[in-house]
Order: sequence, then structure tokens, then C-alpha cells
Amino acid sequence: MSGVTAAAGFEAAGLACGIKESGAPDLAIVATASRRPTVAAGVFTSNLAQAAPVQVSAAHLLDGRAAAVVLNSGNANAATGEPGRRDAHRMCALAADGLGLRADDVLVCSTGLIGIPLPMDALEAGIPKICACVSAAGGADAARAIMTTDTKPKEAVATAGAITVGGMAKGAAMLSPAMATMLAVVTTDAAVEHAALRRALATAVSGSFDCLSVDGARSTNDTVLVLASGEAGAVEHAAFVDALTHVCGSLAEQMARDAEGATKFIRVNVVGARTNADARVAARGVANSQLVQCSLNGADPYWGRVLSELGASGALLDPERVEISYNDVTVCRDGVACAHDTAALDRAMAAADIEIRCDLHLAHGEATVLTTDLSHAYIDENRRTS
Amino acid sequence: MSGVTAAAGFEAAGLACGIKESGAPDLAIVATASRRPTVAAGVFTSNLAQAAPVQVSAAHLLDGRAAAVVLNSGNANAATGEPGRRDAHRMCALAADGLGLRADDVLVCSTGLIGIPLPMDALEAGIPKICACVSAAGGADAARAIMTTDTKPKEAVATAGAITVGGMAKGAAMLSPAMATMLAVVTTDAAVEHAALRRALATAVSGSFDCLSVDGARSTNDTVLVLASGEAGAVEHAAFVDALTHVCGSLAEQMARDAEGATKFIRVNVVGARTNADARVAARGVANSQLVQCSLNGADPYWGRVLSELGASGALLDPERVEISYNDVTVCRDGVACAHDTAALDRAMAAADIEIRCDLHLAHGEATVLTTDLSHAYIDENRRTS
Repeated sequence: MSGVTAAAGFEAAGLACGIKESGAPDLAIVATASRRPTVAAGVFTSNLAQAAPVQVSAAHLLDGRAAAVVLNSGNANAATGEPGRRDAHRMCALAADGLGLRADDVLVCSTGLIGIPLPMDALEAGIPKICACVSAAGGADAARAIMTTDTKPKEAVATAGAITVGGMAKGAAMLSPAMATMLAVVTTDAAVEHAALRRALATAVSGSFDCLSVDGARSTNDTVLVLASGEAGAVEHAAFVDALTHVCGSLAEQMARDAEGATKFIRVNVVGARTNADARVAARGVANSQLVQCSLNGADPYWGRVLSELGASGALLDPERVEISYNDVTVCRDGVACAHDTAALDRAMAAADIEIRCDLHLAHGEATVLTTDLSHAYIDENRRTS
Repeated sequence: MSGVTAAAGFEAAGLACGIKESGAPDLAIVATASRRPTVAAGVFTSNLAQAAPVQVSAAHLLDGRAAAVVLNSGNANAATGEPGRRDAHRMCALAADGLGLRADDVLVCSTGLIGIPLPMDALEAGIPKICACVSAAGGADAARAIMTTDTKPKEAVATAGAITVGGMAKGAAMLSPAMATMLAVVTTDAAVEHAALRRALATAVSGSFDCLSVDGARSTNDTVLVLASGEAGAVEHAAFVDALTHVCGSLAEQMARDAEGATKFIRVNVVGARTNADARVAARGVANSQLVQCSLNGADPYWGRVLSELGASGALLDPERVEISYNDVTVCRDGVACAHDTAALDRAMAAADIEIRCDLHLAHGEATVLTTDLSHAYIDENRRTS
């Protein structure tokens, strides 16, 4: 069993209900096999313009329990006002009817264009239909049905002793990933208390999705959900956190690798910072830079832009201690150019995976942020919505 | 007399000294006609990786006086360490020798590639030569000699009663303008005390260069300088601030209009915010968005991204009060799509100048930020430095 149905006690399905004009799958559901609510937690966008499904899911999660998640792609149900909230509630009610649940035990996610009312006819027909075909084999179909401009589905699984954590995610306009919608649903058969699950999710998100080139801003719809069935019994908390972080980290890396128009996968690794928080600020500054991303697109080892972004990031640093390397080829030491093997540097820049390592030589703070280059194809994907 | 020599009491020159391989002009100088130091003030980058010329100019301005500014393009003298500072000091000494000044009355600016030592041979020969040809007619040559990827020189003049304010600027990688170097030198013949000049400059910069799509970060070399000869006598302070702001505003607008690869000039105007500061935060959030810039490149009125950026900006807002217009065609009201004249909207999006007006309907705070679209040509200009 893959992804969101890898853990014992979960079923899923995905199908096309007609939201996308292309006829591609656009409706997914994940449910407990028992049809009983189970321990659940979520992390939602901090955008003030929260989409309707985010508002509804956050309300339904107040009791720390959920029995199902219904998700659609092709329409974000964002900037849709009170009618949008009614539509999100209706999606929950339809799923609850189809699965024999209470509507407030159903969570809801939407992703796609903002500002357009949901085509409820498609959902009125599609949700009863999808509820009839959930199965323990349905994880892969669900992962496919939440894709928007993603070119491939994103699934991950990890185990810790007897327990399993599995998940699915979508997200592809990733150069500024905070502003494209990312959705992730993770399930586990570990028995975890609600408070511990919330803590574990916060830790896992901080070490995974938050390490994409996010600037603190989030899209209208960003959502990460985790449901724990308990069927495989208890597990040591640290091991559970590791497994959850592994799944979230894999999903985050898959998002970066499938970013719109990306030709390179970049890890910006800052070490030697005053604190880990400072390292993250500095790494984000480099990763979010349009000019650095352009250089990477051109395989140009222009470390001056990296140094400038570090200096502008807000992190504490002494520019004349900074060391910068591309895939272990050091091009800047003590803040100035240094001799290096130019053939090795050419090889480093030609690689599809590049690590930009920045050592601030101040203390021991470190952080890694994932990003990509900026290409013509990114612009082409985003210049017209229709 | 144009630009930096429009005000009485200033001379300038520009020529090619061989820093740029292309042979284009790359050395400029501005000096008081009297060769005496006069009241001066500056605003420098807040980047911790300050270029050597920024460090030297800031030190030379501590006494609030200057007699000349020497500027080169083609090399930023940034990330060059102690040798870079020696080179910046040497540029001041060469100009001082050539003009009969003290070296600490000379300010210095550099713009171009980071991390490469200045070609001092070119400057050792060039600076004496340029000192011999400064004249009141030299403003236009100076403006041309500070260009990097700019396609045209940038000059502006304003008057207030008997006094004149004139200036020149460069800057073209403007989509994230904070991270490309902008230099501006402004002169005036108004008689202004040092403290008043500093205050006036801070006000003018805040209402002009800071209204480009800046995110608080600045390049290694950003510098704005103003010198006041006093030759035209005193002027009412508010009128002087207006003239200075007009000149800085014109130069900032010219920078946005000449931005690398830009096909459209965009004003993001946020009104109805809780405070002016909140309005600026919101306007910057929209202006800095790569996704909004892509939409503008495609003439796509996708206001959902604008609303999302407003919500993510950190400014206070109720998304369900927000109104969004493109060149007076309102497409979103109360946070949701509204009926509009589609032909008028098509005309608005096809225009070369677009104002995105966002009314938060909360209070009376307002701000305008200038930006451009994001095009293939921007990537092409920035993917290789050589």
C-alpha cells in the first residue's frame, strides 16, 4: 500500500468528477477504515485571506479528531466569501453522508484557481460516487487526484518499529512555494495522544515543508493534516517524530524537484551562524533570491549575489568571514574570491542537484532550505491562468 | 544644464577609462565648481556586506561635508576585503589630487560585478584624466558613465523659487531592485544646513527610491548622495523637500521604467489601510510577488494572486472587505469576484502602464510601490554574468 493508505486503518480513493476541463482526476478522499473519528492535527496557512476550506477544516479540528478528508483540485474555493464557506461545508456533509460520518468529523481541502465559485454540481455527483469506492488500495489514486500543475504524484512512507507513517502531497509552483498552494495528508497507525500528535506535526513541518524557500507568507489554502488510527499501537515519541519528519521531508523534497519549470534542485545550507534561527533566515534569503535563481539557471557560479543576499537577509554575519561553496568547491573564503579548481566548479554548476554551502564562521547555528532555479518555463506556466 | 550639473555651483564629467571590456563610459565625477567642500548628506545600503566604497563614503561624510564624488561602473568593488578598501581610498586620493581637494572630502561609488578586484591601472590613468575635463556641461556624460545594464541614462531636475535641484541615477535589475545596485547623486544650489539636508534626504528617499519594490534588503552598494552648494540662497524647507522628492521620485520612476526585461510599468496603490506603514507593507507584498509579476507579463487579470499576497503581507486586513482594480476596472469587491466590463479590463491589461489599486476599506492608510512584470528577458539578462 502506498502513501496515504500505507498505515493500517486508512482507505482512500481518487477520481475525476468534472471540476477540471481536462477531465483529469480532481477529487480525492481519505477515511478511517473503521469510519470512526480518530486523533488528528493540522497546520494551516497563516495568510489572512484564508480559503473557505481552511476555515472549515480548522473549525472541524477543534476537537482534535477527524474521520475523513475530502479534497478537490482545479478550484481553490478561495476569495469566495460566505457562499464559499457554504460550499466547503456542503463538501463535508456530502462526504459524511456517503461514509456514514458526522459532517464535523470531515476535513476539507481545495487547491486550484482563486476567486471562482466551486462547481457544486460536479461535487454533488462526485462525492457520493467517490465514497462508494474508497479502499486500502486507493492511496495512489488519491495522490494523483490532488495534482494541479504537478507533473507527478507525491507519496512517502516511513516506519518505526511496528508503526507506519504514510502521506501524499501536491504543490508545484514552488519557486516561491509559500504562495502556491501546498496540501499534504499524512496518516499513521501509531497510537498517539492528540497533544503529542500536534507537537510531532509542528516539529515535522518545521523541519520539512518550512524548509522550502518559504518567506513566512503562505498561500490562501496551504494545509498539512495528520490522522492517527492507533491500530499498530504505541511507539516511542522521538521515533514517531523521526518517521513523521521523514515522510514530510520526502514530500517537501518531491515538491521542490517537481517545481514548475525547474531545471535544478538546490539545497542552500547555512552553517556557522549565531543560531539555527539566524541560519534559517540567511538560507531563506539566498533561496528566495530571484537573482541567485537566475544564476543557477545559467549554471553561473556568481557567489557575489549569494554573499549580498546573506548580508541583506537580516542574519548576523561578518561578511569578511563568510565562506561559500557550490557542491564542495569553495569559491569565496573570508568574504573574497579564492583560488579553486575551475574544472571541478564547472562540473558542480552543471549538476542537476547543487548544494550552496555558506559557512558564516560565527558559531554553530545551521539550517537547510530547498529551492530551484528560475526558468523561462516558470514564467510560461504562470503568465496566463487560461 | 541637465541632471547633476543643473544646480549652480557644480561640474561633472564622464568618460571611458577601460573598466568595461565593451569600451563604454565607466568613470564619472561630480565636483563643486569652487572646489571647496559643501554641505552633503547620504543614505547607504543597510546590507551587512557593504561594499568598500560605501564604507569609505560613509566615513568621509561623517563631517557632513564633501567637495566631490567619483563613481565607476563595471565593477562594484564589493566582497573585496581590505584591498578593496585600499582601492576605494585610492580612488578618492586620485580625485583629490586631480581637483586640488583633501581626499576625505571626496566620496566614492562603484557599481557592477561583485567579488572582483578593481582594475586599478585603468583608474590610476582615468581619474587624473577625468579631473581635467569637469565642466558645468558634463552632467549628461556623468549620467551615461554610471550605467550598467541600464538602457538609458537617468536625470531629473526640479526648481523651487530661485533654487534648483538636479540629479542622476542608475539601476536596472529592478524587479527586486533592492538587490541590484542603485546609485543616485543629487546636487542643489539651495543653502541648507546639514541637519536639514539630512532630514530632507530621508524624507525624499522614503517617498521615492524606497517605493520601488524593495523588501527592506539592499544591495552591497546602494547609495544616494546629495550636495548643496548654497549658491542660490535659502529656500523654504517644505519647498526644498518637495523639489528633492520630485527629483528622487523621477529618478526612481525612470529606474522602474528601464528595469531589465520589463514590458510593463506597474504602480501598486494600496488605500484604506490601517496606517500608511501597513499600506506600504501590503503594496510591497503585491509588488514583490513573482506570481503577480508573471500574471502581468501575460496581461492576465488574475486578482486572486493579488488578494493572496495582500493576505500574506503582514498588513492588517479583512479579506472580505478588499476591493481590487486594474486601471480603474474593479474586478474584486468585498473579497470576491464582481461583474465588470470585460472589454475595458482587456484594454487595462494590455496597457504598458498598469495601476493595481487595492482598497482595504479599513481606515485611511495609503502607499504606492512601483514595480514591473517578470519576463524571459529578465532571466536572460541575469543567468550569466559573462
